[in-house]
Amino acid sequence: MTLRARQLHLNVNLLHSGVYPSAWRLPGSRPDAFVSIDHFVHVARVAEKAKFDAIFFADTPAINDRVDYRPINALEPTIVLASVAAATSHVGLIATASTSYNEPFNIARRFASLDIVSGGRAGWNVVTTADAAAGRNFGREGPVEHGSRYARAREFTEVVHALWDSWEDDAFLGDKASGRFVDPAKVHPIRHRGPHYSVEGPLTLPRSPQGRPVTVQAGGSDDGRELAAATADAVFSLAQTIEDGVAYARDLRARTIRYGRAPDAIMILPGLATVIGSTEAEAQRRQEELWEQVPVEYSLARLAGTLQVPVERLVLDEPLPDPLPLPENANHTMFRGTVALARRGNLTVRELLRALGGGVGHRIHVGTPEQIADDMEAWFRAGAADGFNLMPDVLPDGLEIFADAVVPILQRRGLFRTDYAGDTLRDHLALPRPASRFAPGSASRSA
Amino acid sequence: MTLRARQLHLNVNLLHSGVYPSAWRLPGSRPDAFVSIDHFVHVARVAEKAKFDAIFFADTPAINDRVDYRPINALEPTIVLASVAAATSHVGLIATASTSYNEPFNIARRFASLDIVSGGRAGWNVVTTADAAAGRNFGREGPVEHGSRYARAREFTEVVHALWDSWEDDAFLGDKASGRFVDPAKVHPIRHRGPHYSVEGPLTLPRSPQGRPVTVQAGGSDDGRELAAATADAVFSLAQTIEDGVAYARDLRARTIRYGRAPDAIMILPGLATVIGSTEAEAQRRQEELWEQVPVEYSLARLAGTLQVPVERLVLDEPLPDPLPLPENANHTMFRGTVALARRGNLTVRELLRALGGGVGHRIHVGTPEQIADDMEAWFRAGAADGFNLMPDVLPDGLEIFADAVVPILQRRGLFRTDYAGDTLRDHLALPRPASRFAPGSASRSA
Repeated sequence: MTLRARQLHLNVNLLHSGVYPSAWRLPGSRPDAFVSIDHFVHVARVAEKAKFDAIFFADTPAINDRVDYRPINALEPTIVLASVAAATSHVGLIATASTSYNEPFNIARRFASLDIVSGGRAGWNVVTTADAAAGRNFGREGPVEHGSRYARAREFTEVVHALWDSWEDDAFLGDKASGRFVDPAKVHPIRHRGPHYSVEGPLTLPRSPQGRPVTVQAGGSDDGRELAAATADAVFSLAQTIEDGVAYARDLRARTIRYGRAPDAIMILPGLATVIGSTEAEAQRRQEELWEQVPVEYSLARLAGTLQVPVERLVLDEPLPDPLPLPENANHTMFRGTVALARRGNLTVRELLRALGGGVGHRIHVGTPEQIADDMEAWFRAGAADGFNLMPDVLPDGLEIFADAVVPILQRRGLFRTDYAGDTLRDHLALPRPASRFAPGSASRSA
Repeated sequence: MTLRARQLHLNVNLLHSGVYPSAWRLPGSRPDAFVSIDHFVHVARVAEKAKFDAIFFADTPAINDRVDYRPINALEPTIVLASVAAATSHVGLIATASTSYNEPFNIARRFASLDIVSGGRAGWNVVTTADAAAGRNFGREGPVEHGSRYARAREFTEVVHALWDSWEDDAFLGDKASGRFVDPAKVHPIRHRGPHYSVEGPLTLPRSPQGRPVTVQAGGSDDGRELAAATADAVFSLAQTIEDGVAYARDLRARTIRYGRAPDAIMILPGLATVIGSTEAEAQRRQEELWEQVPVEYSLARLAGTLQVPVERLVLDEPLPDPLPLPENANHTMFRGTVALARRGNLTVRELLRALGGGVGHRIHVGTPEQIADDMEAWFRAGAADGFNLMPDVLPDGLEIFADAVVPILQRRGLFRTDYAGDTLRDHLALPRPASRFAPGSASRSA
């Protein structure tokens, strides 16, 4: 690759029908999108044609929202992405999997397998799953406690990374003449014995094209930032203002350095929901149409869930209760993002619901393609973002509009690629391919 | 579907390069087949063109063989099959997953997702994983003890089946006009509280096209047969002779009746390895070529592993040690199949190794297409098999020969379909689509 100016990175969230709870009801939407592989393949192909870095699949292994009203993340993400892999050639494939409700050996193997079948396009979004309903699907009365979740996640991720290194890159020989299939001296047990996991290894398969699939982290809490600083290649962060974004980036880069890593080792990709119209008025009408179809009792219940307060404590035409302490097992990122949004604008609950758009605290930009491109450029140049995790209002429609109208502006400004420069997700994200810790000369050879 | 005579069912094992350990060394084989999605897609397409019921993916979540000499089951099977699903339209997709090293919620969700993305073609091969190396990848010093493995497997499978029923077939509405997405009265927690698992449910996704993905079981022990009789739609069994096959079928059908099921509720599909030549001499030369490239020390070590005896106890030109008690944590099916093969022919260890072909105790037929078809017909008519789990000597080559030369004979005899009569794996296997236990009028509505 030739040297080139730093550029934006763009992922799109495969949010079933879109970020708005009412997205499935729009005339162009198919209600069964959330369980339609054709829908996900179509979204992935639109993203690939627009030269996006990756598609991104959020997940919770439980129903944690009102299914009577809206789609949920239904299908298991790696199954969807393995199928999408067969129908695409370049776009990265990032799937969420929980460290609280999986085994590290299975996760390491599944993502390395996805990396192999996709030719080096796999990413793992590490989550710890705060959700109580998820705990009840896995033999628990509720969620795992916050601190313990993150301690386990840290060890879990380290085990997964070690397993990804367990075959040196040249361990596979496949030499028909000599009959030597693999050089067993280059296949290493990892012999991990830790407080939460004991894993002998090695993995069952040769090192994958990316060496290690890309590790993504999405937690904004102190523990989440530490986990990211220690282990992540990219973060899916939450910030409502440029100032918040800059402060987050500064904090994360300082932590990253403390782990002996380069300050820019982690790509920072805040969530950005978009509602795009050819004029500002058209964009606002589109938002209005989406918003009108979200019943207020649904939004209110969802907000109560995020804040973990009884719904009776939320009064539509009053501000949020004050004080509002962080609950033990809240999703810290969503909690803080939501409260900050309300306090900053001094919003009533009704105004807050509208500002959230029925979403979960990520920033919503309503505007023209030019305005959205300006906004993204401002965040990028200020150091608040290396790119964005886009959450279109409606899928595939909102992504198609972005691809047709916003991407060309970003390309004209030299901010976004006009073609892929490489084949792997690491290539797209300008991340190096890590050497195996077991390779000769590796600093951690003795690990 | 119109009434038609009972027909054979055919699955093919996606055994990386084939059942012979030396298969990867043949001139037409690619050494990297075991990690090549193109290879698996090609094999699946050959099977689909020949109208096979399904492709079948064995698995152990550990390296339990000599990688220096031969390929292993490397990639995680559901990832491969989700990718193969996108490149095929009819052939069934059966993946192995262990009940000892997974969570029932994750397995239920992953296979239901595979069923949805494949349009109703998923099957789950339930194994309990006797392998000690697997235990060490999941925090154990060795394998889970045999009886406990099966007690857990039984409960695990029941939880998975309940989760597959947790959405009634018509729970999803997607009614844009009214805004009703799902009828929550038709989505049911399963509230399972058992000795090994507590799982609240419901699953995160609508009931899959098959209602329940096909459940396959491959254990031949007493516990394994009980598990099959209680829960399976098909068995991948082991029998070296028609008499063994008939006795197995009689035993399994009697057990099935005891569970209140129809005697023919389970499709019995013994493993059958094939080495095909246009003449018998050519088939034997082919076997010779494959066999010559398997080092005797490899076969011997593998046999010692199956029997769980020190390799020194196996003397090449003597019979197997006698007595040879069943070890606590052996794979019972392989152990018994191997010992029976040796005792029946009064074989020396050297002769046994050759009869095993470096395989694991499944029957090997070496012959012409006509001989192989005759043999299959004889087993089928005797009631020793409803079909076969084919294990071609070499892939894709051995499957292509079978498809080109054996399938047309079976079709001319009216023993095998000339086209698919339906779209789902249950359609191919002539298995009914089960009603949800929560559906109105279901006998187990109160479950």
